Amino acid sequence: MYPKSFASDNHAGVHPDILEAMASANRGDAPAYGDDTWTAGFAEKVKEVFGPEAEGFAVLNGAGANMVGLALTLPRRYDAVVCADSAHIATHEGGAAERLLGVKLMTVPTSHGKLRPADLESRLGGLGNPHESQPAVVSISQVTELGTCYTPDEIAALAATAHAAGLRLHVDGARLANAAAHLGCDLKAVTTDVGVDVFSFGGTKNGALAAEAVVVLDPSLAEAVPFLRRQSLQLASKMRFISSQLTALLSDDLWHRNAHHANQMAARLAAGLADVPGTSLAYPVESNAVFAQLPHAVTETLRRRYLFHYWDEPAGIVRWMTAFDTTPEHVDDFLTDLHKAAAAL
Amino acid sequence: MYPKSFASDNHAGVHPDILEAMASANRGDAPAYGDDTWTAGFAEKVKEVFGPEAEGFAVLNGAGANMVGLALTLPRRYDAVVCADSAHIATHEGGAAERLLGVKLMTVPTSHGKLRPADLESRLGGLGNPHESQPAVVSISQVTELGTCYTPDEIAALAATAHAAGLRLHVDGARLANAAAHLGCDLKAVTTDVGVDVFSFGGTKNGALAAEAVVVLDPSLAEAVPFLRRQSLQLASKMRFISSQLTALLSDDLWHRNAHHANQMAARLAAGLADVPGTSLAYPVESNAVFAQLPHAVTETLRRRYLFHYWDEPAGIVRWMTAFDTTPEHVDDFLTDLHKAAAAL
Amino acid sequence: MYPKSFASDNHAGVHPDILEAMASANRGDAPAYGDDTWTAGFAEKVKEVFGPEAEGFAVLNGAGANMVGLALTLPRRYDAVVCADSAHIATHEGGAAERLLGVKLMTVPTSHGKLRPADLESRLGGLGNPHESQPAVVSISQVTELGTCYTPDEIAALAATAHAAGLRLHVDGARLANAAAHLGCDLKAVTTDVGVDVFSFGGTKNGALAAEAVVVLDPSLAEAVPFLRRQSLQLASKMRFISSQLTALLSDDLWHRNAHHANQMAARLAAGLADVPGTSLAYPVESNAVFAQLPHAVTETLRRRYLFHYWDEPAGIVRWMTAFDTTPEHVDDFLTDLHKAAAAL
Amino acid sequence: MYPKSFASDNHAGVHPDILEAMASANRGDAPAYGDDTWTAGFAEKVKEVFGPEAEGFAVLNGAGANMVGLALTLPRRYDAVVCADSAHIATHEGGAAERLLGVKLMTVPTSHGKLRPADLESRLGGLGNPHESQPAVVSISQVTELGTCYTPDEIAALAATAHAAGLRLHVDGARLANAAAHLGCDLKAVTTDVGVDVFSFGGTKNGALAAEAVVVLDPSLAEAVPFLRRQSLQLASKMRFISSQLTALLSDDLWHRNAHHANQMAARLAAGLADVPGTSLAYPVESNAVFAQLPHAVTETLRRRYLFHYWDEPAGIVRWMTAFDTTPEHVDDFLTDLHKAAAAL
Repeated sequence: MYPKSFASDNHAGVHPDILEAMASANRGDAPAYGDDTWTAGFAEKVKEVFGPEAEGFAVLNGAGANMVGLALTLPRRYDAVVCADSAHIATHEGGAAERLLGVKLMTVPTSHGKLRPADLESRLGGLGNPHESQPAVVSISQVTELGTCYTPDEIAALAATAHAAGLRLHVDGARLANAAAHLGCDLKAVTTDVGVDVFSFGGTKNGALAAEAVVVLDPSLAEAVPFLRRQSLQLASKMRFISSQLTALLSDDLWHRNAHHANQMAARLAAGLADVPGTSLAYPVESNAVFAQLPHAVTETLRRRYLFHYWDEPAGIVRWMTAFDTTPEHVDDFLTDLHKAAAAL
Repeated sequence: MYPKSFASDNHAGVHPDILEAMASANRGDAPAYGDDTWTAGFAEKVKEVFGPEAEGFAVLNGAGANMVGLALTLPRRYDAVVCADSAHIATHEGGAAERLLGVKLMTVPTSHGKLRPADLESRLGGLGNPHESQPAVVSISQVTELGTCYTPDEIAALAATAHAAGLRLHVDGARLANAAAHLGCDLKAVTTDVGVDVFSFGGTKNGALAAEAVVVLDPSLAEAVPFLRRQSLQLASKMRFISSQLTALLSDDLWHRNAHHANQMAARLAAGLADVPGTSLAYPVESNAVFAQLPHAVTETLRRRYLFHYWDEPAGIVRWMTAFDTTPEHVDDFLTDLHKAAAAL
Repeated sequence: MYPKSFASDNHAGVHPDILEAMASANRGDAPAYGDDTWTAGFAEKVKEVFGPEAEGFAVLNGAGANMVGLALTLPRRYDAVVCADSAHIATHEGGAAERLLGVKLMTVPTSHGKLRPADLESRLGGLGNPHESQPAVVSISQVTELGTCYTPDEIAALAATAHAAGLRLHVDGARLANAAAHLGCDLKAVTTDVGVDVFSFGGTKNGALAAEAVVVLDPSLAEAVPFLRRQSLQLASKMRFISSQLTALLSDDLWHRNAHHANQMAARLAAGLADVPGTSLAYPVESNAVFAQLPHAVTETLRRRYLFHYWDEPAGIVRWMTAFDTTPEHVDDFLTDLHKAAAAL
Repeated sequence: MYPKSFASDNHAGVHPDILEAMASANRGDAPAYGDDTWTAGFAEKVKEVFGPEAEGFAVLNGAGANMVGLALTLPRRYDAVVCADSAHIATHEGGAAERLLGVKLMTVPTSHGKLRPADLESRLGGLGNPHESQPAVVSISQVTELGTCYTPDEIAALAATAHAAGLRLHVDGARLANAAAHLGCDLKAVTTDVGVDVFSFGGTKNGALAAEAVVVLDPSLAEAVPFLRRQSLQLASKMRFISSQLTALLSDDLWHRNAHHANQMAARLAAGLADVPGTSLAYPVESNAVFAQLPHAVTETLRRRYLFHYWDEPAGIVRWMTAFDTTPEHVDDFLTDLHKAAAAL
């Protein structure tokens, strides 16, 4: 067995309730491609959580959810996406946006990973100019790649700016649950209620085996999803096993329990760091991620024992992620080792 | 619960051994994206089954396996695929080949879904002509979309023709296990041993939850797979749960037991059909598919009770699929109802 | 100097009136990219010829006109084109439709290169099925690749069938002038008046240097053209020199004079063929193309002296094209040589 | 007639020698698509100017030359381009790179539009990581979009860095002639001699009607050009009229005479600016472009009379371009009006 990882929340396994939900879906036959009762149940659950106009579509992974969701907002061949230069779609999805969607990503340098209305406005100068790609959607990550969260007001302001200019607002919500848990609100308060048009809702990083969703809040966009999901290689044939994971997450507040716990573990880790000389937080801790600046020697010592990644190696910044199954003991052991490594300098 | 379906082998659930393998992979943390021991085990298993040069890569669904595999064989922007006009990649993958790969599919009308060397040769006239797409790979389906199988000799002949013209040979093996079980050979005998360059190996239709593989037999092609798999939205983050399914299938002959059983159920169904007046087989039964020509009234009566699809409605041809969990009783009940419906005419 | 070619109407040079129009546009400066008076004049001319709702956009070559025009009719990523299997877009544009547009071409075998309403209907079975590409436009060639012409009634019938099913009608009119000249009607009668939505209007094969146009008859589609033309590499910076060619063609019936003359030369050639034993016409001669079936030895003898292409070498079918500058003497000399070659058998 | 424009060198007309060369190519028939003697002559001329291994291919416009040339250097579906964030391919080609090539542009902020080896190195951190697009080529503009030039040594240094990392070096040479004229060297000294792999050679902005070339210096890349040019909608059917323009430019130093004159006119304009209070040069003047910072009121007054563009409106920076046919009187009149406008403040 591997030691507890601080490298990613997708190093964690599957929450037992979710595995149980999958096993209980394994009863005899069911129609494929989503014409089954588990998938119908998931669609109902999405309306319950996100409002009656919300339409949820199960997909296979996070990049898939992003590509299907973004595609909905990019009807013209010359449409472009405005996003932070740290956006996952811009940096770590293997060039899928450019290759599969054919779109230009108009990236904006940001502070703490968050786009501001003025950032969006700075990319609108070419609207109407046939020589330039045309911004059609702004895409933000909630939680951002730097572990920070947009408040509902911040999202509403971006939505207003985007809509006023004729753009849509897309959210990469691979860690939306962690954001809502941090903000102390429900999932609707950071999506439906603040002008989001379409978003990815992540399950895998929050205790699922492999389950994400594209949730469409503008009903006029929903019709295209089945076609785009199929074409984008994101359609599960035995879909009941994906849908049942998502329903489990959205039932009995499992999404919140998992995310809140992971966030608490990150907070515990950040708190412990305060006592370690020579270290500091690189960004505010607002989710299950801790970005810390460490002396390189400390990092090297720790990495002999623990899995985690450099975020910015020259700057000495590392990223630590917690998960639904990170325990206080895991954190405390890690902090103990961190103290030792720092003391040994 | 739904009645036993004859519509598709992906209406079936998950074989208990496979679900058990997934559950047993759910132990603590493991590195994501395939750097885990379950995935290493699957890679080993692929070499054991397909030979030491074979490289296996787990992906999420069948269309994904086909697109990643084909992409390997289409290095130039003007490359084309030669395939049967009934090929799944040409008819039922939502236009993914054209949209995601940007390639032309040069389709050939076939008898019984099988390409012959002469069919391939008929599409080579434009080689070297800059006005025409350049055939770079021939893609066949094993089992074909019409339930028929290529013999090893037939594949070897196609491979020889393809290679002589500088083309690769790709196999869509969504039901490769059923083909090998029908042909009475091992999986290597219809792939590695007969000149295949890259193929999709299907798990989902043969008892897995969601697990397919791209298997590369020409080692020079393997290096690109991790990049293409990522970009094509086919990379599972918690890959151990995909790999463990595939390893289970390739262990203890589970692939063969499942496929052989499904084939036998199709044979039982086809045999029973011989006694039903006014009906006939549309194609030879060489796998777990039965294509039957029925009076429309009989079809309509049966469809009130059972799920199955028309293949060619005007011609009165229907498709019945069996699965690893189809029982003799399922088949016999179905035949009884078929007899009744035919007698009622 | 080369001998008179019968290989293609683009082996001809430039009509002196068109070269003169280009030279007269070379006066001092003019705004680039179409904001010039010559381009405004062309836009006016298009409205004069094709009706007040017609919008014309100058592009650089025929494949470019087709790709920009088709793109307008394919707003969704899963849209497909229905066309004849002999269509230029399907056979001789280097796979541009699949690579640049990402669309599936649903090809239909045809007699004499012409699609019938029933052919279109045969490709509509998958409408609404997310597993299948969705037909969104039917594209026909006028003149067809086999030298035949659609009558206005035939186009109107196709348009009605297409529109009833929610599809657009696109025409590849690389030789639209030849068709109108053959049919004895004006250009509007085979486009605007019979339900065409968007078409390519060819200049280069009819005496221009390099000038084609995308003409949009459904005004709702026109807004996208400047963006698509730019992105598709079809925007001329010094556009006045393209526009002036097109205006010259559409002025003083130059389009008709050139096309009618070329058609007459083809008719003269076809008439002469009637006397040559062992030869026959492969298709009706309805434009400036003659498809003839010849003994191979005759073909070989002729090709020592003249440039022309085999259309179907095994069947002994060759294609002869005439142009605006083919003279009766060119034809008669060619026929004399043909007679000699046939007599020598 | 329009007044002399300072907006762009493509507002100019065609140099009489080039129009004459086109007219003289209009003699009878010639094989299409480049199998003609004028195109053969151009190919020879390219070897004469750029060395015996250089292969030149005529195309229709600048974006077309860039897309065909870049495509040669991006064989893998996950390849990326490193370029300046001001690069024309990134800002003003309508998103063609992303849509037609499917590639990510990894843009780098630059000073004066010029990439340095360290800029390139800053984008190589993801090499080998399947989650990231893989840099395969560095593309620079010579002249840059800010009117500055790379010295031969600077290009050689970039080429060395690129090649050491396994990348190619591409040059967008829409104004390569102006660069060579400014640097006082021949065209080979800034391309073949300093490690460039493939480049665009611009004719249109230097007196041609519409003629650009892709020049391939690494012979292994040349084979694909005819296919890519066809597919990319950049193949002229009557190619002799494109080739003859390029040959004329490369003959009798016409490229140099035109470019040198335009550069001199820019220098005269810049020199005159020195006397105008409240104005300054924004970038060094190293070609036929002058970037000036002016009071907005002055700009507005001048734009009532002259065509030119804002480069950065908030900063008050405008761009003035000269051309082969700009006269000293044009410049002096413009400066007189500029003085008046400044005095009127």
